[in-house]
This record gives sequence, structure tokens and C-alpha cells, in this order.
Amino acid sequence: MVKLLGNPRLWSGIKEAVNRGVFTLIFIASTRVSTIPGISIAGSSPEATLLTPTLDVEYLLLGRPRSLDAIPVTPEGVPTPALISRAVYRAKGFPLLIVDAGSYREPKIPHIALPSRRVGGRIDIEDALPKRTAEALFEEAKVLASSLSPAAEVFFVGESMPGGTTTAMTIMEALGFRARGRVSSAAPRNPHQLKEKVLLDAFKRARAEPPIEDPIEAVANFGDPLHISLAGFAAGALERGRYVILSGGTQMCAVLAILRRMGYLFRDRLAVATTQWLVEDSSSDFIGLVGEVAPGVGVAIAELSFSDAPYIGLRAYEEGYVKEGVGAGGLAALYVLTGGNEEKLKHAIYREYEELMGHGSA
Amino acid sequence: MVKLLGNPRLWSGIKEAVNRGVFTLIFIASTRVSTIPGISIAGSSPEATLLTPTLDVEYLLLGRPRSLDAIPVTPEGVPTPALISRAVYRAKGFPLLIVDAGSYREPKIPHIALPSRRVGGRIDIEDALPKRTAEALFEEAKVLASSLSPAAEVFFVGESMPGGTTTAMTIMEALGFRARGRVSSAAPRNPHQLKEKVLLDAFKRARAEPPIEDPIEAVANFGDPLHISLAGFAAGALERGRYVILSGGTQMCAVLAILRRMGYLFRDRLAVATTQWLVEDSSSDFIGLVGEVAPGVGVAIAELSFSDAPYIGLRAYEEGYVKEGVGAGGLAALYVLTGGNEEKLKHAIYREYEELMGHGSA
Repeated sequence: MVKLLGNPRLWSGIKEAVNRGVFTLIFIASTRVSTIPGISIAGSSPEATLLTPTLDVEYLLLGRPRSLDAIPVTPEGVPTPALISRAVYRAKGFPLLIVDAGSYREPKIPHIALPSRRVGGRIDIEDALPKRTAEALFEEAKVLASSLSPAAEVFFVGESMPGGTTTAMTIMEALGFRARGRVSSAAPRNPHQLKEKVLLDAFKRARAEPPIEDPIEAVANFGDPLHISLAGFAAGALERGRYVILSGGTQMCAVLAILRRMGYLFRDRLAVATTQWLVEDSSSDFIGLVGEVAPGVGVAIAELSFSDAPYIGLRAYEEGYVKEGVGAGGLAALYVLTGGNEEKLKHAIYREYEELMGHGSA
Repeated sequence: MVKLLGNPRLWSGIKEAVNRGVFTLIFIASTRVSTIPGISIAGSSPEATLLTPTLDVEYLLLGRPRSLDAIPVTPEGVPTPALISRAVYRAKGFPLLIVDAGSYREPKIPHIALPSRRVGGRIDIEDALPKRTAEALFEEAKVLASSLSPAAEVFFVGESMPGGTTTAMTIMEALGFRARGRVSSAAPRNPHQLKEKVLLDAFKRARAEPPIEDPIEAVANFGDPLHISLAGFAAGALERGRYVILSGGTQMCAVLAILRRMGYLFRDRLAVATTQWLVEDSSSDFIGLVGEVAPGVGVAIAELSFSDAPYIGLRAYEEGYVKEGVGAGGLAALYVLTGGNEEKLKHAIYREYEELMGHGSA
């Protein structure tokens, strides 16, 4: 099932449009924030998180990672949500493109390169990006959206960037929204205190007193290459009259925050889609954040459950591990919205997991 | 007008399908063959030809080049055919992606990067590519086609690579087709002798005795990164049941030759589209080449004429300058096939030229 919140006209429009033409994109980037020990478990070690986006999208497209012979797992071995995305991609074959906004290592698959792509800085000790880079990424992603928008009526846009909830939080706070203690985590124990320390160190370092009016400046100081690129793409597609479904968890609220401050919060065509695991996570407040940052924007919740999974690596999702990422929630929602049967999807995901296990990892 | 040759069922299928969903791509690459003095006029000097693909696609997408403040022109100042492509892109807004298969300088626009992209060697003195690179480019472009093919029923695929008719000729000859003296040129005086010298030097250097059975080996020794990538994309899209229109002149015959030797010559879904200037060029033999390399494949000819152009730079097209490139012929054909009026197109092209002139170049 998919639960749809917000404007019913938005959702009836989307339900019709998905059958006429859908395009899916996964944006990837890295931020050195993910290497701060304790911030992210989206990788087998803090340093390994830098490779996770690259491996995620290689696996998504090819069924096996290429830059390293191991799919991304948490230190406990819980596998990447890319397996959910891959199950949908294989079953439905929606057009799919990967967009590199600043990967640590270039993925070994065809991908869209944004010319200004660049790994984001560790915001507690350095700027995230030069201001001109933040601005350029927004514009480049917007150009991409305008050259792609004739291809579909609905764009599902996901992401992979470990450390992203921390920079999402700092972006939102910098823009004047209350985000502390409200962003999610791939870990069952959300390291809120550590995230807040990064935020305080970053604000102190930059001598910033939020709210900062200019979203580009906020992103350059406290953000990362990912969220500003997603915002640029959404802005471009919305300007061309397309539906945009931001497919992700609390990170996507930072994209909404940027869009709102830039005047692109087109509520009749913009939605967020995520998983039930994320929405029900007691350590974060997705629904509250959406309401604060972008009231009136649509929300889709894919009600996936792995409680009957024969594998502990998948049952761990029910205990608060991973929850979302690589467009998993949005793609699961899209699967159901285009007439797919959720039991079938679940078993396709289980089969993906088996194939992964057979491949020797996770 | 567009003249359509070959299987009428192919063309009636394409005419219906273009109204349901079209996707356009321009592949770019460089070969150092273009720096051999006298081989190519697709740039203001032999060295400048290396930048032409980059500037072409920047201009196509943005209306101005970014890597250098000058659009590509011949030494005499005749402007790039990208202005025809841009007029169609602006008027019709088909989805458009640039694919970098081996540019000399990365374009400053969002573009698809093939991981194995690489500038091709000067085949008279060195191999074009390592064999594994030629193989990888084919596979990568094929993966791209399979992830994009759900987005449209028809793919128009163009190219920009100076020096390409020379490597196209050597590829075809290496694969056992008679191509000497039959490929076209951007110059009104086609330097056939010089091209043949490059071919002979290349065959001597590699101690090759055509025909070579393996197209990958032929391309690695005597080709370039462009044609093998185009062939990979076409193979992937054809396998998925899509129509593929190779949009270019005699270069595209090298793509057909590779596809034929690999067993991908799907005549019911494959066509070439070019301009009347190219077909009527007395120094080359486009129709004869298609018949030799890929008998039965469809041919579309866009009957553009600039004879009443108020600008000498455009009237030069009527004297045999430039003729084709950057998908110009295919996109002009697509414009007409989707109901566009050719007089309107011509005037849109003239306006593009005016804007270019206003920008200070050409």
C-alpha cells in the first residue's frame, strides 16, 4: 500500500500522469561530514561511506558494484536500500539516470556529470563548497531538468549521500527552520548530539547567525553538493510544468527548504515520497519537518514491511536500520502507483537480496 | 521536405512513433586524426578541431559556448551545423542529452559521461584505443541505451567529432567494405588523397590485412571512441525494440558497418538521416555506401536549402561547406516528421545565425 497525504488533486493528477510517462533519477555525492566517526553507518567504516554512493548506483544499474567487489552495508552487515530500488527497476524498467553531483569516486557506469561536481567539505571545520560552485550546481541541474523534462510528466528523484541528514539539518537550520533533533538516521540510535555538535561547530566557524537569507550562501557554508543540485533539478522540472517527487526521507526536507526560500515551492506539483520505516521512526520527525518547511506539499508513504523476511539483514530494517535511501521509498511507491502488487515487490526484493548474498557480500 | 528511402513499413512505423515519444542524443569525442593538417576544417585550425565537439554541444544546449567564447567555424568562418540542431531543439523541445565518449575537454554543461571515454589516437602513428577501451565503450553505451530506452520509442542519435570521416573510412575498410573515396568532408574539396594516406599508414603500422573479423579489434586499431559508442547505443536500443535513427552523414555508415558485423543490423527499426547537401555531394557517395554496408536500412534526407539566406556564412552550405554534423540532418528531418513547417525551420535557423553573429563570432 501507499499512503498519500496532502492535496487530493495533486495525487489524482500524479496517478494519471505516471501512466503516461515517468523518469527516475538518482543523484549522488559525498560530503566529508560522513567521515566524522559516529555520524553515518551507510558504509562499513567512516572512510568507506565515501564510496557508498558510487557502489550503490553501480549495483542499482548492473546488479553488482564495479569499483569494489562489495555492496554497501552497515558495520553490522545490513544491506543498502538500493536493493529495493533495483527490484523496482528490474520489474518495471522505468527510465533511469544517475547524476553525479560530487562523488568521491566516479561511478563505472554511464552517468550524468554535472560540470561543477565536487565532494563537499567537512562543515564543522571548513566550508562545504565555494559559493560559485553551489550556484553552478543549482544552475547545471536546472539545465539538465529542462533538457530532460519533455521526456516525462513525472520525475522521481532520489539520492545517495552518507552524512546527508546532518547537512540537511544544518541547511534547514541555517535557513531558519527548526530541524535539530528531527532528522532521521540510517542507524537505529540516531546520533542527534553528534549531529548538533557538527552544526554548532559549523555555525561558530562561520560566525553565522541564522536565518541566512540566501540559500546559496547557506549551502556553501553549511551544506553539500547534493541538496542544492536536487533543488536545481526540481526547480527546472517544476518550471516546465512537470510533477516532481522527491524520493527520500528527512534529507529531502532540506531540498524543500531551499526551494521554498527560492520561491519554487509549487505545491500543486511537488511531493515527497518515503518509506513507512522512516515515517514511523521515533527518533526523527519527517511529517513534522515537512509541515514546518513546506506545508501543503504532498507526502507518499510506501508501506513496505520486511517482518516476514527469511534474512536477518532485511529484518533489521524493521528494527530501524537503514530505512530509506537511493530512492527506495519513492520507487516502491511508484511501483504500487503504476499497478504493481506489493507482495510481488517484496518477494522481488527478497530475491535481490539472495542474489546479493550469492555474490558474496552483505 | 523529407525524402524517405527504403522499407515503407519502417517509415510508417517511425512516423507514428515519433508522435508518441522521441529522445535525441548527441555523442561527442575527439580523435587526434583531426589534428593532421588538411584532414578537417571543423575548426579554425587543426588544433582547434579538438575543442569543436565541446563548443558545439555547449552552444546547442545553452545558445553560447562556455569553454571558449567562440562558436566553431571553418577557417573561412562558416559556422557549425549545430545551429540547425539548436533551431530544432528550441522550436520543438525534444528531450536532449549529450554523451561524452572521449572529448578533449569536458563540456561545461550537464552531460552523460561514459566511464571509459578517451580521446582517440592518431591512427597513422598509433592505435586508436586499447582494445579493452573499445569493448568497454560499446558495453557502456549499451547499458545507457537500456536504462534510457523506456523513455521513448524513437532515438535520434547524432555526433560531433572532427576527423570522423577519415576514421569512419578506415573502420569500414578494415571491416571489408569499399569506403575509399566515398566518405564525405566538411570541406568543399574533399581531401581523399590525404585520408587514404592516413589509412595506408595505419594499415602498414598495424601490419593489418583487412578484412578484420572482430569489429572491436578494427576499432581499437583504426577507429576512434565515437563510432563504437554509437554502435553500442544503437545495439542496446534496438535490442529493446526501439527505433534508432543514426543522424549524420557517411560517418554513420561506419556505425552501420560495426552493427552489421556484430549482428545488430535490424533493418525494420534502423535508419540513417542526413541532409540533402550531404547526399548530393559529388565528392562522396552516401547512398552507395549505405547500400554497400547496410542494404535495406532506411534513409531519410532533409531537403534544407540556404540558397536564399541573407548571410554568406549560410549560403556557403550550398557550396559544399560543412553539410552535416551535430545531428543536423536527423533533427531537421524530425522537425518535419513531427509536423513542422520547413520554411519556418529555415527562418528559425537564420535567426539562430543572427543571434550568433550578434554574439560576436562566426
